[in-house]
Amino acid sequence: MEYYSKQISQLIAELSSLPSIGAKSAQRLAFHILHMPKDDVKRLSETILSARENVRFCKECFTLTDQNVCPICADSTRDHKTIMVVEDSRDMAAYEHIKEYKGVYHVLHGTISPMQGIGPEDIRLKELMTRLQGDVKEIIIATNSSLEGETTAMYISKLVKGTDIKVTRIASGVPVGGDLENTDEITLLRALEGRREL
Amino acid sequence: MEYYSKQISQLIAELSSLPSIGAKSAQRLAFHILHMPKDDVKRLSETILSARENVRFCKECFTLTDQNVCPICADSTRDHKTIMVVEDSRDMAAYEHIKEYKGVYHVLHGTISPMQGIGPEDIRLKELMTRLQGDVKEIIIATNSSLEGETTAMYISKLVKGTDIKVTRIASGVPVGGDLENTDEITLLRALEGRREL
Repeated sequence: MEYYSKQISQLIAELSSLPSIGAKSAQRLAFHILHMPKDDVKRLSETILSARENVRFCKECFTLTDQNVCPICADSTRDHKTIMVVEDSRDMAAYEHIKEYKGVYHVLHGTISPMQGIGPEDIRLKELMTRLQGDVKEIIIATNSSLEGETTAMYISKLVKGTDIKVTRIASGVPVGGDLENTDEITLLRALEGRREL
Repeated sequence: MEYYSKQISQLIAELSSLPSIGAKSAQRLAFHILHMPKDDVKRLSETILSARENVRFCKECFTLTDQNVCPICADSTRDHKTIMVVEDSRDMAAYEHIKEYKGVYHVLHGTISPMQGIGPEDIRLKELMTRLQGDVKEIIIATNSSLEGETTAMYISKLVKGTDIKVTRIASGVPVGGDLENTDEITLLRALEGRREL
């Protein structure tokens, strides 16, 4: 990027270090920013810094939030006895988006992955166990249906076994609108195993 | 984006206002930033602001630079009598990348586009004319081969006509490695018109 002045090259380098932004996108973004009104750039820059400075983990569910307790945990109209366990805050947002789930969440911030050296102590499992000592009726494990997600789900279900808490797992199967022909074998198997009487 | 706390939503909104960053990408970027080390986020934020504050137009060629005169115009080993006219700083970088061109540039910052209400006075044409009063032998018009790029090229060539300055246009044709079958008709026509004896 020696074709640009130092500050422009630095800006391109910073932007291309972000995920899924390649060299071309970084250049396009950089020049867009350089042509934006100064006030807008100031706001963009401040929003980035301020979000990073002020966003922390919710004391209850460990999602990212700018308050001590996130809006969902602070909402007394929600069912605090049902906890959905998710991998990250975006998965939580995905379920909030469908506006059907009325319980609360627990964000693990990862999954158990022996391949990547991530053990149970590296994700927010201890904090989940602490929460389960309270008044909890059901935990719904909504980790991804990847190898790591399944491993984590199994691990949690074993930990909770023997308590009065019901442990459920969201269903795996053929996505709605998906066709069987293009569905992988494991998903087809899961869909068969999870069949229901009509 | 009401599923996130205010500062997170603001960050996502700011990021998704950038070109070619959709809602999903903005979320992914936002959470990446929220998980980055604070010092890295500080540097990102400051680089954005500082680039916008300090980058200005080169006094000679009007490319974006953080100095009064860009490194290319400041380079006395380059041929200042040959000026390549480009639409924006990225086109200039594209030609610099091939390391063959030894002249200097003139960045128009746009093209004449009656459809979009952009006239000759809205781009850096007056500045080009001023430069041509100096010691210039050739101008190479390297605007894109779009309708606007061609219109601008024609306009400039008419302006310069009658002076001693040679006006050239970069070649249009089938891209190297491209196949004729998938090349549009206008490009095929241009390639034919621009044929050379072997």
